[in-house]
Amino acid sequence: MCAKSVQSHRKDEHLFLAEKFFTQQAKSDFEQVRFIHQSLPESRLADVDLTTHFAGFTLPLPLYINAMTGGSAQAQKLNAGLAQVAAALHIPMATGSLSIALKEPETVASFQVTRQHDQRGLLFANLGADVTVAQAQQAIDVLQADALQLHLNAPQELVMPEGDQSFRWLDNLQTLRQQITVPIIVKEVGFGMSQETLAKLTSIGIETVDVSGRGGTNFIQIENERRHQHDYSYLADWGQSTVESLLESQASQKHLTILASGGIRTPLDAVKALRLGAQAVGMSGTILHALQHHDVTAVIAWLQDWCQQLRGLFALLGCHDLTALRHAPIV
Amino acid sequence: MCAKSVQSHRKDEHLFLAEKFFTQQAKSDFEQVRFIHQSLPESRLADVDLTTHFAGFTLPLPLYINAMTGGSAQAQKLNAGLAQVAAALHIPMATGSLSIALKEPETVASFQVTRQHDQRGLLFANLGADVTVAQAQQAIDVLQADALQLHLNAPQELVMPEGDQSFRWLDNLQTLRQQITVPIIVKEVGFGMSQETLAKLTSIGIETVDVSGRGGTNFIQIENERRHQHDYSYLADWGQSTVESLLESQASQKHLTILASGGIRTPLDAVKALRLGAQAVGMSGTILHALQHHDVTAVIAWLQDWCQQLRGLFALLGCHDLTALRHAPIV
Amino acid sequence: MCAKSVQSHRKDEHLFLAEKFFTQQAKSDFEQVRFIHQSLPESRLADVDLTTHFAGFTLPLPLYINAMTGGSAQAQKLNAGLAQVAAALHIPMATGSLSIALKEPETVASFQVTRQHDQRGLLFANLGADVTVAQAQQAIDVLQADALQLHLNAPQELVMPEGDQSFRWLDNLQTLRQQITVPIIVKEVGFGMSQETLAKLTSIGIETVDVSGRGGTNFIQIENERRHQHDYSYLADWGQSTVESLLESQASQKHLTILASGGIRTPLDAVKALRLGAQAVGMSGTILHALQHHDVTAVIAWLQDWCQQLRGLFALLGCHDLTALRHAPIV
Amino acid sequence: MCAKSVQSHRKDEHLFLAEKFFTQQAKSDFEQVRFIHQSLPESRLADVDLTTHFAGFTLPLPLYINAMTGGSAQAQKLNAGLAQVAAALHIPMATGSLSIALKEPETVASFQVTRQHDQRGLLFANLGADVTVAQAQQAIDVLQADALQLHLNAPQELVMPEGDQSFRWLDNLQTLRQQITVPIIVKEVGFGMSQETLAKLTSIGIETVDVSGRGGTNFIQIENERRHQHDYSYLADWGQSTVESLLESQASQKHLTILASGGIRTPLDAVKALRLGAQAVGMSGTILHALQHHDVTAVIAWLQDWCQQLRGLFALLGCHDLTALRHAPIV
Ligand SMILES: Cc1cc2nc3c(=O)[nH]c(=O)nc-3n(C[C@H](O)[C@H](O)[C@H](O)COP(=O)(O)O)c2cc1C
Ligand SMILES: Cc1cc2nc3c(=O)[nH]c(=O)nc-3n(C[C@H](O)[C@H](O)[C@H](O)COP(=O)(O)O)c2cc1C
Ligand SMILES: Cc1cc2nc3c(=O)[nH]c(=O)nc-3n(C[C@H](O)[C@H](O)[C@H](O)COP(=O)(O)O)c2cc1C
Ligand SMILES: Cc1cc2nc3c(=O)[nH]c(=O)nc-3n(C[C@H](O)[C@H](O)[C@H](O)COP(=O)(O)O)c2cc1C
Repeated sequence: MCAKSVQSHRKDEHLFLAEKFFTQQAKSDFEQVRFIHQSLPESRLADVDLTTHFAGFTLPLPLYINAMTGGSAQAQKLNAGLAQVAAALHIPMATGSLSIALKEPETVASFQVTRQHDQRGLLFANLGADVTVAQAQQAIDVLQADALQLHLNAPQELVMPEGDQSFRWLDNLQTLRQQITVPIIVKEVGFGMSQETLAKLTSIGIETVDVSGRGGTNFIQIENERRHQHDYSYLADWGQSTVESLLESQASQKHLTILASGGIRTPLDAVKALRLGAQAVGMSGTILHALQHHDVTAVIAWLQDWCQQLRGLFALLGCHDLTALRHAPIV
Repeated sequence: MCAKSVQSHRKDEHLFLAEKFFTQQAKSDFEQVRFIHQSLPESRLADVDLTTHFAGFTLPLPLYINAMTGGSAQAQKLNAGLAQVAAALHIPMATGSLSIALKEPETVASFQVTRQHDQRGLLFANLGADVTVAQAQQAIDVLQADALQLHLNAPQELVMPEGDQSFRWLDNLQTLRQQITVPIIVKEVGFGMSQETLAKLTSIGIETVDVSGRGGTNFIQIENERRHQHDYSYLADWGQSTVESLLESQASQKHLTILASGGIRTPLDAVKALRLGAQAVGMSGTILHALQHHDVTAVIAWLQDWCQQLRGLFALLGCHDLTALRHAPIV
Repeated sequence: MCAKSVQSHRKDEHLFLAEKFFTQQAKSDFEQVRFIHQSLPESRLADVDLTTHFAGFTLPLPLYINAMTGGSAQAQKLNAGLAQVAAALHIPMATGSLSIALKEPETVASFQVTRQHDQRGLLFANLGADVTVAQAQQAIDVLQADALQLHLNAPQELVMPEGDQSFRWLDNLQTLRQQITVPIIVKEVGFGMSQETLAKLTSIGIETVDVSGRGGTNFIQIENERRHQHDYSYLADWGQSTVESLLESQASQKHLTILASGGIRTPLDAVKALRLGAQAVGMSGTILHALQHHDVTAVIAWLQDWCQQLRGLFALLGCHDLTALRHAPIV
Repeated sequence: MCAKSVQSHRKDEHLFLAEKFFTQQAKSDFEQVRFIHQSLPESRLADVDLTTHFAGFTLPLPLYINAMTGGSAQAQKLNAGLAQVAAALHIPMATGSLSIALKEPETVASFQVTRQHDQRGLLFANLGADVTVAQAQQAIDVLQADALQLHLNAPQELVMPEGDQSFRWLDNLQTLRQQITVPIIVKEVGFGMSQETLAKLTSIGIETVDVSGRGGTNFIQIENERRHQHDYSYLADWGQSTVESLLESQASQKHLTILASGGIRTPLDAVKALRLGAQAVGMSGTILHALQHHDVTAVIAWLQDWCQQLRGLFALLGCHDLTALRHAPIV
């Protein structure tokens, strides 16, 4: 890869700042959701089955690695690691936005490395909501992607020094939905969704949505750190938390498959998100943080433990699968 | 200007103490009002139009510099700077109370300097609610003022060592309203307004009111600092916050044009005040603070950025103008 | 006075510990009661009339010095000072419990000193609720007292190392009410009253009650400090705060004249207590604290200022007297 | 006793960690329950009768020492002390789980020491809910136990490195209830109970339940400290507090006798638990802590004082017995 482009440099800044601002305690409001403890769960860990379904896929675990990176040497290395983790755990993985790969073809390899390390796994290609059908198809082809993730990131664009100044995406989303043949997942990037947003997405035929809420990685904070002249720190709390977004989604859950991300740290966060209607949970910041401090083998082991704890929590709640979990009493 | 009078000295103390007690985080309750984030605003920054109307004026920006000073050498310098900022931004500006100018004619120049630096701009002459019609007219003439601001400041008078002991102003306000030909704006000085106060003002025909609420500059704190014998620190939280005042004003908004000031720091505070019914927002403490730390050119640049951010927030909310903003969902 | 008796020593310990635990911020919940600020009070300080009535007395100020001390040399000195303050302000004063004077006649002078310094003022003799009619009459005679204060102090007795173990007082209170000819005021000692307590007092014909609530001087804390073996610190929050007690008293205010004490520090506390139904407010800890740090002349000046501020707050609220204050809007 | 087994070592770790994490302020929500203070309780300490009944026993005090230990030399020493305290106070005592004694017969003595020191007292044998009838009978025989305590501890098993992975206990509990002739008490170990759990227990004929709630000794914290690879610290707040559990139990109180433990520290905690429906309260952590810092004689004296204070609180509330206490007003 040649001398870093401005875009490529930005990708490295994102990685650096996401890790810099990472905190062990997310602020996604999961601590405000409490399960009622049952002293007689009448369950066995061995009987717990975590199988889930979304976007036409059947998955052994309700977990995926969410969109992060691509477009620089550092990103390539990270993508390789993430893909190995995904392959070992048999969980899906999304790359970061491929828009840089469309503009700077020499960066394609930093994305394709995920397919090399996870040949049979589920890979999601990520792009903004303003791409053309041709661009989207190219990104899918490059990765042999199993699904297309389209992100909505208005607050990030606003604060980003070089950001877009137009937030008109709905018509284009509809066109993409009509023309692209792989499943489409529309996602936020950490500011959560409202009833109104979910209703708009339903109205144009979108079927799978990742509400990606506030409380974990914060792209207003990250982009604001990259500005010299403006100060957007007053926007730091913008958006709906992951829990608020899941509550906002209750009415849409009949028509939409909901995924949840944003500040998922612990298996308890995950089981709460699943209880509130998510079919699976995505993690970015937490896995990035793990890979910055440990090698791939250690991260795989940690994530396997993590999933085993998830299984244990289902048992503790007396629920042998996702359907049963949906009726676990909460306050 | 000759040796400082007692009154003139008091004006300098106000400037000094307002700056001394200035805090970056105001306590006007704006953090308790939250917008619902919409991931699909379907808007463009270029389409946002911030035009507003009040007191018969049409203004490109819903912002003005609120009453502060006059009456000393330091005040004159500050007024010059404020007027340059107002002229550059095309926003109105109010002077501090002209009562000193009526008593000490040699201080008139410290007020007139605003007209010199902002010849075509909107200037508001400020006075207490107990002045005679002749005094009011004189103050207007001195400044060629476009409107008359009349302040209600009972708590300040109470705590002020040399303060008034009568708070009977309603009849005089009515007389002023009937006799003065420029538009009248009745304002608080940072203690906010109640439904009852707004109803009284409506009953005597007042049409434009600045609720100037608690949370920013605090004149009980300032005047208490000037006392030696009494201790009024227990009154420090007196009054309705700016947000509370705007909520109190909901019923009156049919009959009254509401302006908001008191602890406006960020463009997000402003957009919340506008959402709650203000036709424009006034800033005193924040601009005073900026001018104490930066030269006029820098303050103009900062305030232009500030207004650009305000525009951006409208776009983020999917609102192209003030009318649309009034329907943006809040919690 | 001869070598200190055990009882007399206890009186000095009370004074020492009350002052030791004195805090500028009481916890009587007054900060939870807020007046609505009115920008147009339409009032004049000169027109405010603070006259009040209770127990058959008409008083220029709604304030009295509440029961504290007597029974030691130190107490005598303090009582002299308190009486001088009471005389200068024309406010009533209660002595501490005279039970020691009944048992140890040589301590009578430490009480009578109040009458010497306040010959024409209103003095209240204080005793426990278990005294005989003869004892009560003796205490009244000793002081030429204008009223009899009877205290209810079960929590104090419980925690006090040498405390009473019987809390049966109702029948005796009724007897006292029937036989004693001066007005009777039944009071708590800082643990507040409940609806049930007030109803019991009404049922036996009591007409004037000082709810003396939690938040100021705390006799559980004071008596616990005097214990070596037991630890009652877990009881430190026992009782109803003064504000809670006043709210509890709403239903009884038709039949009972309510006085308020417990953590009255500022004129704003007082005006809130009066707004909630008190006919007058009593202070002990605050005045004790003032007299420990300043001479009598200074305390008189401070209390005169304090009353002037009280007058100012009535004006700020647009209320010229107690009747008007009862309708001032609060939240 | 021979070289420590793994199990025996675990018992010592429990003692060490329970004491290490002991805090003077429990988090069982007792501070959220407040009694209304009555200034006229019309009671006498001498008339208070604390007699209670549960599981067929009549007891002079509503207090027992809850299950803790056995199975090591240190445990034996502690059990001796606990039994002496129980004997002196005439209160029941439960041993720790006898499962180690069933597997390692040489540890039996560390349990039997309780009967030696408290020959005529009430002793409860403690076991898990998965034991056979024969094992339960053996444990009862070993101690000449007066009742059988069966614990439900799913969260502890989950976090415990060597924990059980099956939480199916209901059928076995029913069998035990049918076959064992001494009274059975089903208890939690500090995670509290829910309505659902209590309903299940009622449905199989259980009559006495110790809800043992969250807020005192925390076995998730203790077992997590014993893990090297997993981190369950996110589960630290799991479960219902003792107060929440008592509120959950309201509907079941007609059919079930409720006992309360978990974070009982002060006589005020106890009287609140009794007010909320408990027939008696159990303490483990508090008594363990006392015995670690003081000799048996001192602990007996302290606990006698503690009970005397309990008596005093009944008097302060105007309640002469448990039946009256149930009607004391709370908020
Ligand atoms: C370094 C980094 C880069 C990211 N880049 C993208 C991206 O290119 N496209 C996207 O849709 N989301 C991106 N995200 C957002 C995540 O997919 C996710 O929505 C958000 O981080 C919230 O999840 P978290 O709290 O688990 O990190 C990125 C996140 C991180 C940490
Ligand atoms: C130094 C200073 C002097 C002021 N003098 C006046 C005045 O003369 N007349 C008036 O109506 N308000 C006066 N104000 C009050 C402001 O107009 C405004 O109502 C109040 O400061 C709340 O706004 P802020 O929080 O943005 O400062 C003054 C404020 C400051 C900071
Ligand atoms: C030193 C001291 C001694 C007191 N002694 C008595 C007393 O003898 N009788 C009585 O009724 N109250 C006594 N009180 C209680 C007060 O009268 C009053 O009810 C209580 O202190 C609450 O008011 P405060 O917070 O203003 O101190 C005493 C208070 C203090 C500070
Ligand atoms: C060191 C220790 C060991 C314990 N062992 C047992 C046990 O073997 N069986 C049981 O049912 N509970 C056991 N417990 C739990 C207690 O019986 C009780 O339910 C819990 O500690 C909550 O009460 P506390 O807050 O007063 O300690 C133990 C508690 C402690 C402190």
